[in-house]
Amino acid sequence: MMDFLAQCRAIAGEAYVVDAPADMAAFLTEQRGRFTGKALAVLRPGTVEQVAALVRVCAEHRIGIVPQGGNTGLVLGSIPDASGRQVLLSLARLNRIRKVDAVNRTMTVDAGCILEHLQQAAAAEGCLFPLSLAAEGSCTIGGNLATNAGGTAVLRYGNTRELCLGLEVVTPQGEIWSGLRGLRKDNTGYDLRDLFIGAEGTLGIITGAVLKLYPQPKASITALAALPSPVDALRLLVLMQDHCGASLTGFELMSRYCLDLVAQQFPALPRPFAEAHPQYVLLELSSSESEQHAVGLLEHAIGAALDGGVIHDAVVASSVGQSAGLWQLREHIPLAQAKAGKNIKHDISLPVSLIADFIAATGPLLDAAFPGCQLVCFGHLGDGNLHYNVAPPPGISNDDFLANQDKVNRVVYDSVMAFGGSISAEHGIGALKREELAHYKSAVELNMMRAIKAALDPLGIMNPGKVL
Amino acid sequence: MMDFLAQCRAIAGEAYVVDAPADMAAFLTEQRGRFTGKALAVLRPGTVEQVAALVRVCAEHRIGIVPQGGNTGLVLGSIPDASGRQVLLSLARLNRIRKVDAVNRTMTVDAGCILEHLQQAAAAEGCLFPLSLAAEGSCTIGGNLATNAGGTAVLRYGNTRELCLGLEVVTPQGEIWSGLRGLRKDNTGYDLRDLFIGAEGTLGIITGAVLKLYPQPKASITALAALPSPVDALRLLVLMQDHCGASLTGFELMSRYCLDLVAQQFPALPRPFAEAHPQYVLLELSSSESEQHAVGLLEHAIGAALDGGVIHDAVVASSVGQSAGLWQLREHIPLAQAKAGKNIKHDISLPVSLIADFIAATGPLLDAAFPGCQLVCFGHLGDGNLHYNVAPPPGISNDDFLANQDKVNRVVYDSVMAFGGSISAEHGIGALKREELAHYKSAVELNMMRAIKAALDPLGIMNPGKVL
Repeated sequence: MMDFLAQCRAIAGEAYVVDAPADMAAFLTEQRGRFTGKALAVLRPGTVEQVAALVRVCAEHRIGIVPQGGNTGLVLGSIPDASGRQVLLSLARLNRIRKVDAVNRTMTVDAGCILEHLQQAAAAEGCLFPLSLAAEGSCTIGGNLATNAGGTAVLRYGNTRELCLGLEVVTPQGEIWSGLRGLRKDNTGYDLRDLFIGAEGTLGIITGAVLKLYPQPKASITALAALPSPVDALRLLVLMQDHCGASLTGFELMSRYCLDLVAQQFPALPRPFAEAHPQYVLLELSSSESEQHAVGLLEHAIGAALDGGVIHDAVVASSVGQSAGLWQLREHIPLAQAKAGKNIKHDISLPVSLIADFIAATGPLLDAAFPGCQLVCFGHLGDGNLHYNVAPPPGISNDDFLANQDKVNRVVYDSVMAFGGSISAEHGIGALKREELAHYKSAVELNMMRAIKAALDPLGIMNPGKVL
Repeated sequence: MMDFLAQCRAIAGEAYVVDAPADMAAFLTEQRGRFTGKALAVLRPGTVEQVAALVRVCAEHRIGIVPQGGNTGLVLGSIPDASGRQVLLSLARLNRIRKVDAVNRTMTVDAGCILEHLQQAAAAEGCLFPLSLAAEGSCTIGGNLATNAGGTAVLRYGNTRELCLGLEVVTPQGEIWSGLRGLRKDNTGYDLRDLFIGAEGTLGIITGAVLKLYPQPKASITALAALPSPVDALRLLVLMQDHCGASLTGFELMSRYCLDLVAQQFPALPRPFAEAHPQYVLLELSSSESEQHAVGLLEHAIGAALDGGVIHDAVVASSVGQSAGLWQLREHIPLAQAKAGKNIKHDISLPVSLIADFIAATGPLLDAAFPGCQLVCFGHLGDGNLHYNVAPPPGISNDDFLANQDKVNRVVYDSVMAFGGSISAEHGIGALKREELAHYKSAVELNMMRAIKAALDPLGIMNPGKVL
């Protein structure tokens, strides 16, 4: 392997081929600390050409390559396995914003750019790059693209897939595909872009992208609605969309259990309602016109929801600070969960119209199998995406309960599949859900995926052991 | 071949395997009458299972299959070649709307459904299916998906690709892939859906789809603006998007030459302005709130455009009839061209920000090569999509000028590529632009496309001779 590492050093430079265990540790450990992989080396190229040359060397030596951006993934997709025979290839040094085009409403960027920096660069040109998620301060756009990240703006702007017009990719042969097209319409052959997006680095390495920008909204306004049940939350969603169209930019469901947990763990946070309600919906409206327009629209829609008996009560934020306070409640749910102890997490999606039925059907199934277990159910209801987490029954330790993970997953995922849903809405498959994928996908679909993998990466060097 | 046809008849029924030349003629002739292919037979299956069984028989006999929907394509994508050794497989009998789900905002449909019927079915549930194009009365959704059709609503709602959540596909092996998922988020493996969309039937046969629906807008309003140049049209686009956000649903550029042609050929149509202007933009705004809101928004934006000197003049439609009249001007451009005589058509796209530069640079190139030639330049400016058609110089017959087609194409497409554009924005490649594709695509991209084709269709029976 000395020959291999020497070749890598000749390409990337001595300082950027890291093989001292202490220096590799941060790259090899999954962010929640659940797993640490091993690697021959961490490669840190500084140019696309270096990425391509490194891939050619890896191909020559049949060495598996694990691409990594900000290492914020949740499914072990960017961590090498325990064999020590793979290399980790970090895209972090490719972090240049190549071009912002405010008239074409596009931004051409390196894969290693931090998401938050891209949001800021767009804003500096009076535009919005809408992708937004908890890890935005450290995740990279290359990772967002490779995993087709979701986040809080999907209802209005779509997933990362919908925010990308073109890609630059280093193929498993170490060639550079320059697909950095900034076009709204292009029907010239197969859609390779969308094949690489969401492939989690198993078909090639995304090194650059053309991203869509939008006009910056003039105002946003937030409200919290209290309501009896998930069925009513669906009624509210339809009502809000009919009233507000594309101005509805956020619609997050939170159960009473979630907000009670937040209140318990973070007593300093606001409590918007004097009494408790079974369900809550956090609403966000954005206006391309004015704050007055946003307020008028929201008040009108909420009035209709109250009149129609769809909601019990609602609080409308009257300041940016109050808006932030309401969003804090939502964002503190995972933090409160973490403080309360580990639980069994699921990132699932369903047809929006079946969410209430899914919730009604799945709770009893879990309760029958694990009497007294607690559901921490919240998420992006407008996208059909639930974070459906299962906490131990009172009196059972979190660690003991975690031993049931496989059984709990089976109950939840079987129910998801029965309702036509997905076992991974926005987090991807990685190494963590690879067996679940093989369990739930049809043979026809798996065979097509395997045929594509074999066709584009015949040596099997791109992120081996992930997804398929 | 008797054995083959007998097997087909056993599957689809005697009446639905057509091989009498007179009965096949309508299926084998391209809609503009430019080419008539030959076929062993026209197969007209009535179920997805029949499609799959027919594909298996074709695979057994190594017979190429040309899928066809409404036969409205413009690039010879759904017409068999002249060999007489292929079969045409019509999806027209698969025309059932399987389900409309107004809460999930989805519609599950057979591939052979006529686009207009889907628009009507959505409207009956208070929803909008936004795909809209000239052929909507006879094109099918399967064809729209196979060619990733564009149309007049792309600015707001995207291409057909963006309007589809799931597919059902018969593979080249005659298996049925049931990917009819109605999910907004699903990150479980490779994006096969987007691979089949736009593949023009070369990777498999789309038999069903889950389509996205939107809330029906409460009001739409149309205006026609007169302005000095394409540069000003881009300024107007940015201004309108900043003022109106997602309410801007149409933005069509038309040159003076286009409207003069319409006035000449259709003197009964309205002439909105007393004097002529170099360029015109047809604007459409939709409001999810009310007509009053749409009118206020449009008047405010147009006021700002007049104040800023971006436009010379504007006419706002004050009735549905006036709106339709303005759209008629746009829709009559291709009809006026057809009446005036054949010309050399291009369906191109560019980065929106470079459209004015492209127009400024390409006209002189054409004029140098073909002195006095006339440009009929119009299109979906908001999407960067121009219909850039070249008519003969005065005194030269259309037929004589058409002999220059390859040379004209080379000038136009070379310029398109120099500006980072696409030689097929919304019409696809088919058989017509196959050589252009091979000429302009990079080897890296072509090789990936060929590898995917070989992996999924190793016998090469799916729409042979199209795209690749």
